[in-house]
Amino acid sequence: MENQPKIAILGGTGALGSGLAKRWVQAGFPVIVGSRTAEKAQEAANALTPAAGGPAPTGMSNYDAAKAADVVVLTVPFSNHDAILDEIKDVVEGKIVVDAVVPLVPPKVAVVQLPPEGSAGMIAHNKIGDKARVVSAFQNVGANKLQAEGPIACDILVTGNDVESRKTVISLIEPIGMRGIDAGAIANAAAAEAMTSLLIGINKRYKVDCAGIQITGING
Amino acid sequence: MENQPKIAILGGTGALGSGLAKRWVQAGFPVIVGSRTAEKAQEAANALTPAAGGPAPTGMSNYDAAKAADVVVLTVPFSNHDAILDEIKDVVEGKIVVDAVVPLVPPKVAVVQLPPEGSAGMIAHNKIGDKARVVSAFQNVGANKLQAEGPIACDILVTGNDVESRKTVISLIEPIGMRGIDAGAIANAAAAEAMTSLLIGINKRYKVDCAGIQITGING
Repeated sequence: MENQPKIAILGGTGALGSGLAKRWVQAGFPVIVGSRTAEKAQEAANALTPAAGGPAPTGMSNYDAAKAADVVVLTVPFSNHDAILDEIKDVVEGKIVVDAVVPLVPPKVAVVQLPPEGSAGMIAHNKIGDKARVVSAFQNVGANKLQAEGPIACDILVTGNDVESRKTVISLIEPIGMRGIDAGAIANAAAAEAMTSLLIGINKRYKVDCAGIQITGING
Repeated sequence: MENQPKIAILGGTGALGSGLAKRWVQAGFPVIVGSRTAEKAQEAANALTPAAGGPAPTGMSNYDAAKAADVVVLTVPFSNHDAILDEIKDVVEGKIVVDAVVPLVPPKVAVVQLPPEGSAGMIAHNKIGDKARVVSAFQNVGANKLQAEGPIACDILVTGNDVESRKTVISLIEPIGMRGIDAGAIANAAAAEAMTSLLIGINKRYKVDCAGIQITGING
């Protein structure tokens, strides 16, 4: 892995994925947008504006994107979570796989409904954790905030069983305007994933569109 | 219920319970400290300093405290959670029962280990929700912060299936220096309870003693 790791965003044409892609591209990272078809992915990549002097983003199928990248970020809907893990399993050996998937169960997306395994992060860890280093992150930031400019008043809870991988992911979060928080083991992904439903409900109840969370009482 | 509801704090001699008792007493609320024995409860009540012109706190057995109060707050350890619910079940009809219990499983208290029911709040709701109005709150505030003076940089996530009861509990939180957040249905208690383990781990990892959470993006 170079200083600037190649970041693949699978499901990168969706709301969260395209927001992350936009920010990492603007921060000068080499980004591969992944989607079901390479054509859709290339279209989305072409729509992104690279940083001055930074690399132009590329578009590939999810599988090819995962294969070509150093860090693989999953932003697919929960209904596709199992399928994407199966699809990329053989090409993520030794890589960091950042699971940003939230196990929302429509229509009651504002009610916590965690899966029997505990969390999407734990599902990913169980499925590919013997090969990849699974880290969970980005559950609590609204896609609309990523699309806007400037720093975001939302901390990113980063969980995973490998402390070095958590640090690496935290180092990728700060250049895109948020603070990453080392939140411990992958079992703790349950807290971040559950919080998403609360934030969706708070947005409705408080008539806002950007509720987020911040950890208080720590410096930096 | 009067304007100033009588608040019983069961397990009120513990760290969290005594911190809440101190703050509600100072805010002028009539407080009943509950404990296993009336003697221990009275001792703890006598140690509290009433607000100028405010009512002196009293001490009773947990059962008598629950019986005498308008609002009953549970701050017992998770290992006593089932027992206290059974004990008070017959004297909380129509009352608000605020469950502040976190399902920590020693020794790994910094790892989320939610119970099969989803949360302590859901356990309470299943057990006594046909009689009492179960609300979950206070999982994320450190007892040391309650013991200190002044406002606390930690929001309190308030969940429960009865919206009016959530509002009542939020109205009891603001006079003691925190902001209560309407966080929806009792199923959402899982998020607040899971967050406690993250905060315990963050305290260790960041070498602080007062990590908390705040909801961003809403006014007030």
